[in-house]
Amino acid sequence: MSLMKTFPEKLHEAQSACNSLLCVGLDPDPQKIPKHLLARYDVPQAVFHFNAAIIEATQAFTAAFKPNLAFFEALGVQGWTVFKKTLDRIPPDKLVIADAKRGDIGNTARKYAEAFLVQFDCDAITVSPYMGADSVLPFLGFPGKAAFVLGLTSNVGADDFEKQTIIDENQEHKPLFLAVAQKVKHWQENMLGTAGLVVGATQADAMMAIRDATPEMPFLIPGVGAQGGDLQVAITAGTANGGSVLINTSRGILYASSGRDFAEVAAKEAQKWANEMPYRT
Amino acid sequence: MSLMKTFPEKLHEAQSACNSLLCVGLDPDPQKIPKHLLARYDVPQAVFHFNAAIIEATQAFTAAFKPNLAFFEALGVQGWTVFKKTLDRIPPDKLVIADAKRGDIGNTARKYAEAFLVQFDCDAITVSPYMGADSVLPFLGFPGKAAFVLGLTSNVGADDFEKQTIIDENQEHKPLFLAVAQKVKHWQENMLGTAGLVVGATQADAMMAIRDATPEMPFLIPGVGAQGGDLQVAITAGTANGGSVLINTSRGILYASSGRDFAEVAAKEAQKWANEMPYRT
Repeated sequence: MSLMKTFPEKLHEAQSACNSLLCVGLDPDPQKIPKHLLARYDVPQAVFHFNAAIIEATQAFTAAFKPNLAFFEALGVQGWTVFKKTLDRIPPDKLVIADAKRGDIGNTARKYAEAFLVQFDCDAITVSPYMGADSVLPFLGFPGKAAFVLGLTSNVGADDFEKQTIIDENQEHKPLFLAVAQKVKHWQENMLGTAGLVVGATQADAMMAIRDATPEMPFLIPGVGAQGGDLQVAITAGTANGGSVLINTSRGILYASSGRDFAEVAAKEAQKWANEMPYRT
Repeated sequence: MSLMKTFPEKLHEAQSACNSLLCVGLDPDPQKIPKHLLARYDVPQAVFHFNAAIIEATQAFTAAFKPNLAFFEALGVQGWTVFKKTLDRIPPDKLVIADAKRGDIGNTARKYAEAFLVQFDCDAITVSPYMGADSVLPFLGFPGKAAFVLGLTSNVGADDFEKQTIIDENQEHKPLFLAVAQKVKHWQENMLGTAGLVVGATQADAMMAIRDATPEMPFLIPGVGAQGGDLQVAITAGTANGGSVLINTSRGILYASSGRDFAEVAAKEAQKWANEMPYRT
């Protein structure tokens, strides 16, 4: 997509065009992709052909694709070639979110940003906040690009740290995820790029609290489908006060069928999800 | 290194053999590597030849090498080929720590573990704790391998969250980094692999507190050299009660000279660092 538009503008255009909040997650697992692809190709090639078929079949119903880097890296040296070839199959009017959850500081963070936002020209990347400001700011320097920072995730381990109460610099008690959201909002000021947050759909009450604190930030919402989050509750909370959201589904679409009809069934599944999450301006 | 040995055994052997706690960080930045390499090769090839020369020149003085994945990923598609070729130049009796700071959950975390600990056969990986137990445990299932979890880092952003006070499940107040260290110690129990912690050298008092809480865990210590941490203070704190440490230096060795003598000067610099951090059993 053009660098002349801001990320929120690109998000609006992509969601308007398909009338959907859907983001299709690309988590291509060789153990789950159809056997006929593995019979015909080596594993990296089978993964590429699987991705290409999923992208072609679901693109009418989705505003964005979210390749999960772990599944590419697990292919070894060829993984990044498969990643690049997969990106080349995504139409230019769809957003690409590199789900990489990178988190490192200074010069290293700048190199990760360069890798995903420049070399691979993705529209956004997911980022971990643990190391603080200098691990997030380097991802916010790119016009038209976004960094979705992990806020509150949909896994059980969210109890370990994200939901713990912290006492901040002003002696206020709040959950760590809210402190993260507030600081990310602050860091975003005066930056050329856009900061967003990853907020799991399994956490609707918390999502409302985060939305109140950060009305302007786009949310990337995983956790509907396989992880059990309630879609309509998540949409209501995430879009309160005009907030924008992208709602990710991966396994429920990718592996809806393991037969030769996998792409066709994935398209139907994507359409079903899209119908349940129309885009309203 | 053989899978039959535990990670602590491998660490002991590697450090005994060179009588040094040193870990050489491989952060190959095209803007900093010698110009004559860039004149002779394209950028990815120049980075590879730089890495190969550094590894050959410094291996007598170091127990481990720590490739920083960001610098490979920033090379684009060819980055992972350069990463693999670089790993192939590291002698089998040296430890390889993939500085990847990955942090994701469940199946995704298992794929990252598979990528670095199986496909690329590194001895260890750095991991972010933000998402909790299910983002760390998948890295601890590999005999002979280790995951160094971010505890307290050496950057200014450590103030943002790592050093904030949290109120834990038992209503105890403690800094987040200490809660992380204690939970990682707990998660390590009954796992086949080894959990370690990343603890910055710029945080000596805190390092002592973490060492008291986790006497058995190896520390990976960045932050001496360019970041200004005091080496002897870090060694004293990190090795208290028989604790094991790996002390990383990157830029001070890699870029000690930008001329044709860069490898020779890097070797001298590595030797100087090694002499200041002998291994004591």
